[in-house]
Amino acid sequence: MSFKTLQKKINEKNNPTVMGLDPRLEYIPAYITAGTVKKYGKTPAAAGEAIFEFNKGLIDACVDLIPAVKPQSAYYEMYGLDGLKAMRDTIAYAKSKGLYVILDAKRGDIGATCEAYSSAYLGEADIFGEKRKMLGVDCLTVNPYLGTDGIKPFVADCEKYDKAIFVLVKTSNNSSGDFQDITVESGGTLYERVAKKVLAWGSPENIGVVVGATYPKQLADMREFMPDTFFLVPGFGAQGGGAEDVKPAFDKNGGGAIVNSSRAIMCAWQKQNDGENFGKWAREEVVRMRDALNSTLGR
Amino acid sequence: MSFKTLQKKINEKNNPTVMGLDPRLEYIPAYITAGTVKKYGKTPAAAGEAIFEFNKGLIDACVDLIPAVKPQSAYYEMYGLDGLKAMRDTIAYAKSKGLYVILDAKRGDIGATCEAYSSAYLGEADIFGEKRKMLGVDCLTVNPYLGTDGIKPFVADCEKYDKAIFVLVKTSNNSSGDFQDITVESGGTLYERVAKKVLAWGSPENIGVVVGATYPKQLADMREFMPDTFFLVPGFGAQGGGAEDVKPAFDKNGGGAIVNSSRAIMCAWQKQNDGENFGKWAREEVVRMRDALNSTLGR
Repeated sequence: MSFKTLQKKINEKNNPTVMGLDPRLEYIPAYITAGTVKKYGKTPAAAGEAIFEFNKGLIDACVDLIPAVKPQSAYYEMYGLDGLKAMRDTIAYAKSKGLYVILDAKRGDIGATCEAYSSAYLGEADIFGEKRKMLGVDCLTVNPYLGTDGIKPFVADCEKYDKAIFVLVKTSNNSSGDFQDITVESGGTLYERVAKKVLAWGSPENIGVVVGATYPKQLADMREFMPDTFFLVPGFGAQGGGAEDVKPAFDKNGGGAIVNSSRAIMCAWQKQNDGENFGKWAREEVVRMRDALNSTLGR
Repeated sequence: MSFKTLQKKINEKNNPTVMGLDPRLEYIPAYITAGTVKKYGKTPAAAGEAIFEFNKGLIDACVDLIPAVKPQSAYYEMYGLDGLKAMRDTIAYAKSKGLYVILDAKRGDIGATCEAYSSAYLGEADIFGEKRKMLGVDCLTVNPYLGTDGIKPFVADCEKYDKAIFVLVKTSNNSSGDFQDITVESGGTLYERVAKKVLAWGSPENIGVVVGATYPKQLADMREFMPDTFFLVPGFGAQGGGAEDVKPAFDKNGGGAIVNSSRAIMCAWQKQNDGENFGKWAREEVVRMRDALNSTLGR
C-alpha cells in the first residue's frame, strides 16, 4: 500500500517505528527451538518453524503498538526453502493482523529481471495466463545501482497495485560512504544524485528512500531536499542511532518517516534472561522506543 | 569454486560461454507445461515442475558443450516456494553434471545481512550449532552500492569455501549509465571507482566483475585496467551484443571471461516452432555462439 496508508497506520498507533524481523536462531528463546528441534532434529525445518513461531509471538505481543513490520529477506533465505516458507507465513500473518509489511530485500537488476522481482513481491505473477498474487507485501526496498530501467517495473506495479518502494540512498553501514558519498563532477554526492532521480521516478506516495539513522547530518540534508518523500530509517538501536539522531528524518508535521529497530526488540528478553516472556520484553522495548521518539519529536 | 576452476572448465569445453537459465513460462514448450498443468492445474507447483523439467532438458542437451550455467534468481522467486524449489533442484542437477554454477542474484546489504546472504548461497548456515551447506553455488553476483562492508562477508566465504563472486561494475542495461557513468570529482567514472575497489577487496581468483556486452568500449577499458580479473559478460544475443563486442573482455591469452546467453538458447526452438526438440535447437545455438566467439578470438 502507498505511504498514505502507512502514515495512517503510524498515526493510529501514534508510533513511527517498524519492527524489523531479522530472525537469527540465537535470538529465539530456547523453549521454542527445543520444541522444533525435538520435532525435526537440527534441521532447516526446525529453524523455519522456530522462526515463524517467534515472529508470531513478537507480532502478537506488539500488534497494538506498531504500524508495520520489516522482514529482512536474507535471514530467511539463509535457511533455504524452510526459511522462505517462514517468511511467507510471517508476511501473511502480519497482514492478517492489519500490519503494513515492508520486505527488506534490496532487489535491483535490469528491467526485464526487475519485472520478475516486482511480480514476486509487489504485483502478480502470470501463471499460465492467470494472474496470481504471490508474496504481496505492501512495500519493497530496492537498490538503484542499475539506474532507471531497473526501477521502472517496480514503480509501474506500485501505481497499478497501490504499493510502495524504498530506494537505497544513504545506507546506515560504516562503509556506505565508499561510493554513496563520492563527490560527483557536477557537484554534490552520489547519494544526492540518487535522491534527485528518486524524485523524477514517480510520486512520493509510492517512492520513498532509505537513509540511515547513523548519518543524522545527511538525514537532515535529505529531508530538506525532499520534503514530501517518505523515509525508512534503519540503524536505530543496536546499530548506534538514537532518537535525536533520527529526528531530522521527520517532516515539518512530525510525519513522513518510519524508524526501524530489529535486534533491540527481538532480543530484549536476553537482557532479562527471560525467554519465556520474550513478547513482554519486546513490548517494553517498543514502548520505550516509541516514547523516546515521540518525546524527541514533541508529539 | 574459484575462477581457476571455471577457466579449467572453459578450456575443457573450449567454450567461454555460460547458459543463462531465466525460465519464463512462455519459454517452455507446450508439451512440458501441458503435462504439469494436467497434474497440478494452473498453479505455481505446475510452473515450478515445468521449469525444472525444462532446465534439466537444456542441461542434458548442452552439458558436453558448456562449462557453466547461470540461473537468474528473480525468475524463480517469481513463482514463490515452488519456483525456489525448482531453482534449488536445477542448481543441484547442474552441479551433479559437473557444471560450474553462477547464481545471478545481485545481493547487497550491510555487513551482518550479507553474512546471512553469503551463508545462504556460498558458505554454510549455522543450524542450531551445526554447520550446513545450503544452496552451495560456485559463484554469486553481488551489488556494490553499500560499499566494502557489504562485500567483505562474501569475500571471506569465497576464501574459506573456495567460491567466487562477480561484482556489478558496468551493467548491460540501457540506463546503466545513470549512476555508473557519472564522472566523479577525483576523475574517472563511478564504475571505474567500483573496479578499483574490486582490486582492493581481494584476489582475482575469487572476485570478478560484471561488464555488459552492450558497452564494448568500457569492456576494453576495464580489461586494460584489471588484466587479471575474471569478467562475466551479460547482454550477448537477445540484448544486442555480438562476438566482436565481447572480444575486448578477454585477456591476452583469450581467457579470463565468460559470456552469458539466456533467451537465445532457451528459446531457440521457437524460431523452428519445434518445442519437442527444444534441446536440439538449444544445442545448435550454443554451438553457433561458441564458434562465433572462438572464431573472433582466434581460438
